[in-house]
Amino acid sequence: MTNTLLISCPDQVGLIHSITSVLRAKSLNIVNNFEHVDSESAWFFMRTQFTGGACGKELLDELSGALPSPASVRLASAAPKNIVILAGKEPHCVGDLLVRHCNGELNANIKAVISNHSDLKQLVARFGIPFHHIPVESDDRGAHEAKLLDVIIPLRVKYLILAKYMRILTPDFANTFPDQILNIHHSFLPAFIGASPYKQAYARGVKVIGATAHFVNERLDDGPIIAQSVLPVTHSHTVKSMTQDGREIEKIVLARALKLLLDDRVFVHGNRTIIFE
Amino acid sequence: MTNTLLISCPDQVGLIHSITSVLRAKSLNIVNNFEHVDSESAWFFMRTQFTGGACGKELLDELSGALPSPASVRLASAAPKNIVILAGKEPHCVGDLLVRHCNGELNANIKAVISNHSDLKQLVARFGIPFHHIPVESDDRGAHEAKLLDVIIPLRVKYLILAKYMRILTPDFANTFPDQILNIHHSFLPAFIGASPYKQAYARGVKVIGATAHFVNERLDDGPIIAQSVLPVTHSHTVKSMTQDGREIEKIVLARALKLLLDDRVFVHGNRTIIFE
Amino acid sequence: MTNTLLISCPDQVGLIHSITSVLRAKSLNIVNNFEHVDSESAWFFMRTQFTGGACGKELLDELSGALPSPASVRLASAAPKNIVILAGKEPHCVGDLLVRHCNGELNANIKAVISNHSDLKQLVARFGIPFHHIPVESDDRGAHEAKLLDVIIPLRVKYLILAKYMRILTPDFANTFPDQILNIHHSFLPAFIGASPYKQAYARGVKVIGATAHFVNERLDDGPIIAQSVLPVTHSHTVKSMTQDGREIEKIVLARALKLLLDDRVFVHGNRTIIFE
Amino acid sequence: MTNTLLISCPDQVGLIHSITSVLRAKSLNIVNNFEHVDSESAWFFMRTQFTGGACGKELLDELSGALPSPASVRLASAAPKNIVILAGKEPHCVGDLLVRHCNGELNANIKAVISNHSDLKQLVARFGIPFHHIPVESDDRGAHEAKLLDVIIPLRVKYLILAKYMRILTPDFANTFPDQILNIHHSFLPAFIGASPYKQAYARGVKVIGATAHFVNERLDDGPIIAQSVLPVTHSHTVKSMTQDGREIEKIVLARALKLLLDDRVFVHGNRTIIFE
Repeated sequence: MTNTLLISCPDQVGLIHSITSVLRAKSLNIVNNFEHVDSESAWFFMRTQFTGGACGKELLDELSGALPSPASVRLASAAPKNIVILAGKEPHCVGDLLVRHCNGELNANIKAVISNHSDLKQLVARFGIPFHHIPVESDDRGAHEAKLLDVIIPLRVKYLILAKYMRILTPDFANTFPDQILNIHHSFLPAFIGASPYKQAYARGVKVIGATAHFVNERLDDGPIIAQSVLPVTHSHTVKSMTQDGREIEKIVLARALKLLLDDRVFVHGNRTIIFE
Repeated sequence: MTNTLLISCPDQVGLIHSITSVLRAKSLNIVNNFEHVDSESAWFFMRTQFTGGACGKELLDELSGALPSPASVRLASAAPKNIVILAGKEPHCVGDLLVRHCNGELNANIKAVISNHSDLKQLVARFGIPFHHIPVESDDRGAHEAKLLDVIIPLRVKYLILAKYMRILTPDFANTFPDQILNIHHSFLPAFIGASPYKQAYARGVKVIGATAHFVNERLDDGPIIAQSVLPVTHSHTVKSMTQDGREIEKIVLARALKLLLDDRVFVHGNRTIIFE
Repeated sequence: MTNTLLISCPDQVGLIHSITSVLRAKSLNIVNNFEHVDSESAWFFMRTQFTGGACGKELLDELSGALPSPASVRLASAAPKNIVILAGKEPHCVGDLLVRHCNGELNANIKAVISNHSDLKQLVARFGIPFHHIPVESDDRGAHEAKLLDVIIPLRVKYLILAKYMRILTPDFANTFPDQILNIHHSFLPAFIGASPYKQAYARGVKVIGATAHFVNERLDDGPIIAQSVLPVTHSHTVKSMTQDGREIEKIVLARALKLLLDDRVFVHGNRTIIFE
Repeated sequence: MTNTLLISCPDQVGLIHSITSVLRAKSLNIVNNFEHVDSESAWFFMRTQFTGGACGKELLDELSGALPSPASVRLASAAPKNIVILAGKEPHCVGDLLVRHCNGELNANIKAVISNHSDLKQLVARFGIPFHHIPVESDDRGAHEAKLLDVIIPLRVKYLILAKYMRILTPDFANTFPDQILNIHHSFLPAFIGASPYKQAYARGVKVIGATAHFVNERLDDGPIIAQSVLPVTHSHTVKSMTQDGREIEKIVLARALKLLLDDRVFVHGNRTIIFE
């Protein structure tokens, strides 16, 4: 069995040696190892996969003891993670995730799909996943989000996936799930923040359009970016055909980012991500 | 000999037929043909290459007469176009254009390279191209630009190429050369307008960086875009390595856009470009 | 209503004029037009979309009469096309097509999925599409294909889609559906023809892997190519991870090629395709 | 000052710990570290950059002593490496390398350019680099190569760069410079091995063309691949325009591979490369 260890701490001389000393003393065999030092903040990051023994609290304590403070030492669980998908009317991202899940590509349990519209009810039902239609009934965002939380909280989710969920979340909601809400934005951020990015892209006459998967924080479209990709467009693209073609990269970028999260490859450091792959 | 005809006019039924009727009556043979209708503005664009006879004023008049007003009917000259390069300190774009020119890749005469710094003097000299060092001696932009114009105007240039020229041009200067100034901006516009885009990109934690070749108009970094390209970056990129890697796409995008201009493949329509290739 | 006209014939002077004359006389309005001349064979191709009237046999006859022989003049039907998917054990391409179909992205009716394995039965059932398990019971390819034909023929299909169908079809079968069988091959052909392309790619130590969508003819992996795409790989890729990552482009390339076929954008000319998009 | 250590040896438990122990004991600080285990052959690779002290023979001996046999422990020199370029008639790759060298982008001294044609003489002269025209005067490859060696050997080169050198080298010549000859082949190998790859690509009707930078060994176009890239093409490409557009990626891929070599990022392992970047 392969264990995955995620470590971050202030940088100093000899960190790799200190960490591997602890592993070596227990005859654990590193099969895979990534390090990074953020030179601006002098911070060290390491993701190590090893075999040869169990990884218990004792190991974590020994590692913490060997590292400068404040250190984060975390063992990633190999078990499937619980996720909930928030969606709107558009089926492409949700459909893509459902079929990947169904095909065994995601190390996750999709516990539910929640939408403020009912359009995706039948699609979700095909895969035997619970669908919750929670319509927006007033301008009171907090009231709507309270209903979302009534569904989400009992499901003990690791990640919330916004799969073209077109409503802006309140800072309170965002802060309830720090580094746990994954959104797909249909532009190469920071270009075209906010509503109707394809309309904005068309108006500006760009020759590439893009998609960005990022964590949601309390500022709109401003959280740490996990994955981005782009697609060339020409003068023959309309807003409609940009929207259609853009869906192809939206679902790819969202699925790629989710896979990175599920494989425990992502560290968040300030507004940046360190991704070991 | 192949002639290139560039036509734009209000859209209406039968335009292709009207145009090809004129060509057919003169036994001209279309070897290559592109059309586009901008549906928002109902405007028609056509680029036609034909053989079989000379293309004189008479043909242009006949075509204009056959088209709804206001029509633009233009014959592109196959002769090399005069261009002037404006540069700063960075050699990569200038060097790339000089070596392409030297290898016969550009249908252009580089008449001069002008810079506010002297760093590129020797590089330019290697290729036997006149180099003009016009330093910035005061805050008076107009005064500096007047000196640029003293060099540029007598050279009767078709295009000015800003090859990492790091000064902002005045609206007056920009308006002197409408749709004739080609700039390379080191970001995928409209992201990271203005100074130090790689610093901005690093701070935002993006996973792609880009470059944009665009016409210069009176608003900074806001002219019609001709070509864009991007490059993936990771957490291991610093501002310095982004800058280095970014140079690779800056020079490619600039050269691609310049080639499109020299081949008469670009129409400007409002703030958008129609590019037939 | 928009009609799509597909024309090919020997090239000669005045073809566009001849064709547009016929359309103009009927007050039909061209909204979209692509031409290509294959200079090697002096063959002309045109795809025209027009509005303003019905397109009946009379129009086709007039056009044929106006063109040099042998001319092909075809009106593409806007109705959904019948397709059948042939699959093996792998679910990713089939699942992707099913969810696209379900979301209304494909102008097609998936009449059936046929497989020599039963693995995909449940996946297909989720979408309410008939699934036919036709196992391989002997070495007699003809006998197996006869059973396939028993299912396929009554369905009056326009295209057969081989979505990771891992069996080689006989020349007889291939010739029964000329330019109608679309296959996805998991390499950038002509590299790695035949079995286990990812094993071959790993062994050769390539830095890109690819996928190719092509028409099937009587020679293995040698039919006209419609779409190709590639993905970078590194030394850290194993055959297994190449296979996993490769699936991402297999399904994209297959879906892209299928969409081109369904939109009547593909001409076949010898072993090459002309694709107007 | 940063030192670069390159280690490869049979894999076993505790290697990273053993290596970092030696570095730690000398108070050397790892600033950058990459590891890879080739699981097929159970071979370990590591590239470590450290600061904090000199790296002498003593350190290398200690490291070798700490590793299982046969181990390769190598210190990369930070000094510019001597290279010689072999060229034919085409200027684009040579010109690109010369201007990069001139701009200080390459950590290398270009000691000479050798060609069997005289076409590039003036281009090379612009950069003040010695140009040797060694024409092919008979079918005797060995005799021609002997003349090449007369120029190359005294220059004590680290790498020979074949920048569109269109002659096949003898196995003897190739074996004289193991893992030291870098070639650019104008296709995505293993597709289109041998002569006229763009003609082959055109005839096959591919939708992508490519370029491959690889080490030259005794079998034609079969050495370990360092870098590959591709470019989309359409039906409108002729052999000529494929050749022109292909040059854009040929020079990029060659320059990228050369930079990887000059930065000591490439390990060769059988017919594969491990590249740490």
